[in-house]
Amino acid sequence: MLNVGIIGGSGLTGREIIKILLKHNGARITAVTSRSSAGKKVSDIFPEFNTLTDLVFTDPGEKTLFGAADFFFVCLPHTDAMEFVKKAHDAGKKTVDLSADYRMQNTKTYEKFYKTTHKYPELLKKAVYGLPELFREKIKKADITANAGCHASCTILGAAPALKNLQVESVISDSKTGVSGAGIKPVASSLYININENDVPYNVGFKHRHAPEITEVLKRSTGKNVKLILTPQLIPVDRGMLATIYIKLKKAAPLERVKKIYRDFYSKEPFVRFTENISMHNVQNTNFIDIKVEDSGQKDILLVITAFDNLLKGASGNAVQNMNLMMGFDETEGLL
Amino acid sequence: MLNVGIIGGSGLTGREIIKILLKHNGARITAVTSRSSAGKKVSDIFPEFNTLTDLVFTDPGEKTLFGAADFFFVCLPHTDAMEFVKKAHDAGKKTVDLSADYRMQNTKTYEKFYKTTHKYPELLKKAVYGLPELFREKIKKADITANAGCHASCTILGAAPALKNLQVESVISDSKTGVSGAGIKPVASSLYININENDVPYNVGFKHRHAPEITEVLKRSTGKNVKLILTPQLIPVDRGMLATIYIKLKKAAPLERVKKIYRDFYSKEPFVRFTENISMHNVQNTNFIDIKVEDSGQKDILLVITAFDNLLKGASGNAVQNMNLMMGFDETEGLL
Amino acid sequence: MLNVGIIGGSGLTGREIIKILLKHNGARITAVTSRSSAGKKVSDIFPEFNTLTDLVFTDPGEKTLFGAADFFFVCLPHTDAMEFVKKAHDAGKKTVDLSADYRMQNTKTYEKFYKTTHKYPELLKKAVYGLPELFREKIKKADITANAGCHASCTILGAAPALKNLQVESVISDSKTGVSGAGIKPVASSLYININENDVPYNVGFKHRHAPEITEVLKRSTGKNVKLILTPQLIPVDRGMLATIYIKLKKAAPLERVKKIYRDFYSKEPFVRFTENISMHNVQNTNFIDIKVEDSGQKDILLVITAFDNLLKGASGNAVQNMNLMMGFDETEGLL
Amino acid sequence: MLNVGIIGGSGLTGREIIKILLKHNGARITAVTSRSSAGKKVSDIFPEFNTLTDLVFTDPGEKTLFGAADFFFVCLPHTDAMEFVKKAHDAGKKTVDLSADYRMQNTKTYEKFYKTTHKYPELLKKAVYGLPELFREKIKKADITANAGCHASCTILGAAPALKNLQVESVISDSKTGVSGAGIKPVASSLYININENDVPYNVGFKHRHAPEITEVLKRSTGKNVKLILTPQLIPVDRGMLATIYIKLKKAAPLERVKKIYRDFYSKEPFVRFTENISMHNVQNTNFIDIKVEDSGQKDILLVITAFDNLLKGASGNAVQNMNLMMGFDETEGLL
Repeated sequence: MLNVGIIGGSGLTGREIIKILLKHNGARITAVTSRSSAGKKVSDIFPEFNTLTDLVFTDPGEKTLFGAADFFFVCLPHTDAMEFVKKAHDAGKKTVDLSADYRMQNTKTYEKFYKTTHKYPELLKKAVYGLPELFREKIKKADITANAGCHASCTILGAAPALKNLQVESVISDSKTGVSGAGIKPVASSLYININENDVPYNVGFKHRHAPEITEVLKRSTGKNVKLILTPQLIPVDRGMLATIYIKLKKAAPLERVKKIYRDFYSKEPFVRFTENISMHNVQNTNFIDIKVEDSGQKDILLVITAFDNLLKGASGNAVQNMNLMMGFDETEGLL
Repeated sequence: MLNVGIIGGSGLTGREIIKILLKHNGARITAVTSRSSAGKKVSDIFPEFNTLTDLVFTDPGEKTLFGAADFFFVCLPHTDAMEFVKKAHDAGKKTVDLSADYRMQNTKTYEKFYKTTHKYPELLKKAVYGLPELFREKIKKADITANAGCHASCTILGAAPALKNLQVESVISDSKTGVSGAGIKPVASSLYININENDVPYNVGFKHRHAPEITEVLKRSTGKNVKLILTPQLIPVDRGMLATIYIKLKKAAPLERVKKIYRDFYSKEPFVRFTENISMHNVQNTNFIDIKVEDSGQKDILLVITAFDNLLKGASGNAVQNMNLMMGFDETEGLL
Repeated sequence: MLNVGIIGGSGLTGREIIKILLKHNGARITAVTSRSSAGKKVSDIFPEFNTLTDLVFTDPGEKTLFGAADFFFVCLPHTDAMEFVKKAHDAGKKTVDLSADYRMQNTKTYEKFYKTTHKYPELLKKAVYGLPELFREKIKKADITANAGCHASCTILGAAPALKNLQVESVISDSKTGVSGAGIKPVASSLYININENDVPYNVGFKHRHAPEITEVLKRSTGKNVKLILTPQLIPVDRGMLATIYIKLKKAAPLERVKKIYRDFYSKEPFVRFTENISMHNVQNTNFIDIKVEDSGQKDILLVITAFDNLLKGASGNAVQNMNLMMGFDETEGLL
Repeated sequence: MLNVGIIGGSGLTGREIIKILLKHNGARITAVTSRSSAGKKVSDIFPEFNTLTDLVFTDPGEKTLFGAADFFFVCLPHTDAMEFVKKAHDAGKKTVDLSADYRMQNTKTYEKFYKTTHKYPELLKKAVYGLPELFREKIKKADITANAGCHASCTILGAAPALKNLQVESVISDSKTGVSGAGIKPVASSLYININENDVPYNVGFKHRHAPEITEVLKRSTGKNVKLILTPQLIPVDRGMLATIYIKLKKAAPLERVKKIYRDFYSKEPFVRFTENISMHNVQNTNFIDIKVEDSGQKDILLVITAFDNLLKGASGNAVQNMNLMMGFDETEGLL
């Protein structure tokens, strides 16, 4: 059994990783940290785990941490994550980092969008982008995997086959997310009274932090530059993400050819499904991403719709998928 | 006081018209029909009206109907509405028709999308499209006003200023709607368990009935042809519509110029507001449409967001606004 | 026109009072204060008021405040309200206080449940409990009206007729509330992710602050002592309250007699309705309280269900009803 | 591997059983029937199963049915279930029946509440009530297990320890349920627009079909008669049930003693948990029932709160738990 540590485990992504690993046949949680909840039982903070685990949150600063586990999920805010990944790497431990700190190779973009300097550019070079469908072989050998952002992966997986195989002019992604994407912190914009019965666009255009992540990763994986508009919107659901993606082609392509391109691109993927009935419901509480290639009515604009659970394929499920690859487990272990 | 009849008053749009007219200073309800609820008190079907009105639903076939009122709101399914409007017109009565029957002048499009022949093309020619912001002067003189469809008006009002003043290549409207748009009929797709915690795209591309309505009306009001992709989506809210509209220009335009074009276009409108904080919340239970011209990050693609209450500015509120114009009341009477 | 000030106007109850008064024919808002938003336009904080009002929040400490208005709604946290009411009273101004500070005459109970000493017991003696159905004549003459708490009034109005006319042994109120009752403050328990898809009992038994308010006010209005269990529960709705109230009688009473007692008790009330179809929907966005006397199946236990909008009849609507009485307006002005 | 058939598998309870059995280590689905969807793939009706199963719905009338499986879950409407259980029994097959047909031994009560005659009273005598916490040993030997109703088991498990150990005068259960309890049929009362932002009491007093089920089963398991008021309420959640149960004692009992009685009663139960933080969230998507014994503030009234997932411990999860017992599997197999 692999001994796993979860750093910053009292947030929503930590909670999901705990839930998955409690049923994982190759890994077990041997450390879970939380600065704010150190000393408390995990089931005191997340009562759904009552009777299922006796784990206790420990302080992330404890000396014994690297002795307690051999693999780490890092669920810290950015900057904090940057530091922990460095420490873990120095201690010879592999990590999946769920923050944005090691996602973009371009440190200038990182610094512009995250308002902080990247302190470990040499480590950044070693980090692999954690999206198995595009970087599987590199992830298998990675020491540091930078787990993909949710708006990012939902759009990247919807656009990559077109970019790879067609001449794309620009991409527009209208990306609706559930509120769990905003985390567990009590801020006004996450209050029930502000979310319920509402649809709130935020950081639209090219202002959201996942926008440059999308263009950089698409470039890295397909070799193509692309112009992007990303329109994130909060809708009143707990978990789920659905992106309607409009891909303007330089040259029209018949729908059937496009469909074939997409099916071929993902033909061996265990967590990519094509569907005629796309919705959030079909993917919630699963690690699947569902994709539908729609008839837009215009030959030079593709309409691709993608949907996944923002906490699973969009975060913690995808993180475990990355761990499975890094540690030689069956890629789907714990995730079906 | 104007005596008003509501035909098909036991649905959601009828209910909203009743609610508005109970506070209207120039009109009163003297007849409200419902085939299924004839003989029942309005407050038995809609208990929120208990103690507020003694109105009783009557059968729409009653001979006395045209004696009972001088102006009619028609809240019938299409085809049924076509017939009633004809009868009312023959009886010398003005109507606002909330169905689609008199919206499109092109009967071929109508027949293709509604699977039925238009029986009164000569009457159709007299009908005015019921969107005051674009057809105010004609509505004032109209006998038949075809109240705008909800996805249609939300997109039309977001696109018209650009079409009128700039060179537009195509329009994409990603249009999120509350469930009341689907009406009161018990169908599987409107069940709580199928809507809650979900986002469901439907009739996307150019398949929704409001798609040809949008292009025809934009042509009629701005003189420009436009290619359209319309992506309706059901999200888990009762009432509200929010469209994120992407307008591809043939020639780039500076954002400030675009903003001025939009503000000028609607400078005298009582129900159009520009806002920095666009959301469904700000317009629910009002007759306003809020508009935000966003920075898309690309000079040749405008990002315009529009939001209204689909049952008010998107249906019954707009219908009363039309009546106010047709009958010489203050345009905002009953609506502020 | 009466000049009205709203103190602490940037919260949810302030917002509702603003909304009501913008349509009130006898009163106008001449001052609205907010410590946190002083200097900002009301429509910047509440964009739904955009184009409807130019009001600007002022600082509650401004010297000019008592010159600016002749009547005040106090929407402050408890203790702060206690002080402002005192100041206003000294300045010769009438107030409706929406806090709990002047609701209970028993200062010991107040101090126990609110963990603070009441500084103005002599003023407390002058205050009238702001529930028109039970204290109308006193409210008409009051200088200080302590607007009823939401769980309190929903239960009191459901229990008072039985207490007055029958021999009651004990009352159990299972009181479901929308989340707006918790206000606008960003706390974990009001987050969307903690409320949505949930039902959360809180402060059950006799722990909620409205519990002693209920028993004291029932004693004051009916002369009877009563034992109470109050079970508040948060359910995932914005606004609305529904209490299922179980009243154990010392002696059985026939259902028809009970129904008559209830109907007689409220026969002249403009905002009390009896209904066969009780639900939150029928009362949301209204000042009505709906009541249903049910057949519990047991002759010595009454089952009375009450429902209102917690922000209107449960707070701001009821507050305006109190103002209407205090200032000689029609009791329903602005509220129908 | 046990070959299992699911009869009436295209409803919500069938869907949950499919989901559980796809991960069960001792049972596999070899037949799943649906009159309306015969011939369609399960994943066409429930797209979340896409890539997870190739099962096809068959017609329940097919001759081969009893050859195809050795154990059956019956998810049919009442009366239909009565017949199928009979046929299966005649064919020598064991069943868990999720309908109400074999729950009550008193056929008169059954006939009164279900408006139909029980055709197989001799079979009824053999049936065991499917609530493992009260009837485990009988279930192990049963051929027919009548799976408990959701409101019924949520209240029974909350009241049984008190009835067994204390002198109880009467029980009031205020039982809030998610909408999935109403099934998949498109009826007006299950529409989103009628459920969302609402709380709807229904069949209150002693009118709900689960009311006599509760009193009969409590008598059967504890030997005590009890008077019951059951107040079912629909609240806007998909899945979950939470009952606040008020138990009037003939003689007061100290809270600590009551807590001990409850803990002792369920000390060996794998799916009963005691908690200080009771809510729907903690039990959704699990087979647990959480129980909290509260301080009601009155020594002779117990306040017990129970919560479970109405589709799992309240239906399909409990059904699989019953199958596990009947077929000698580990009781928790597939359910943790």
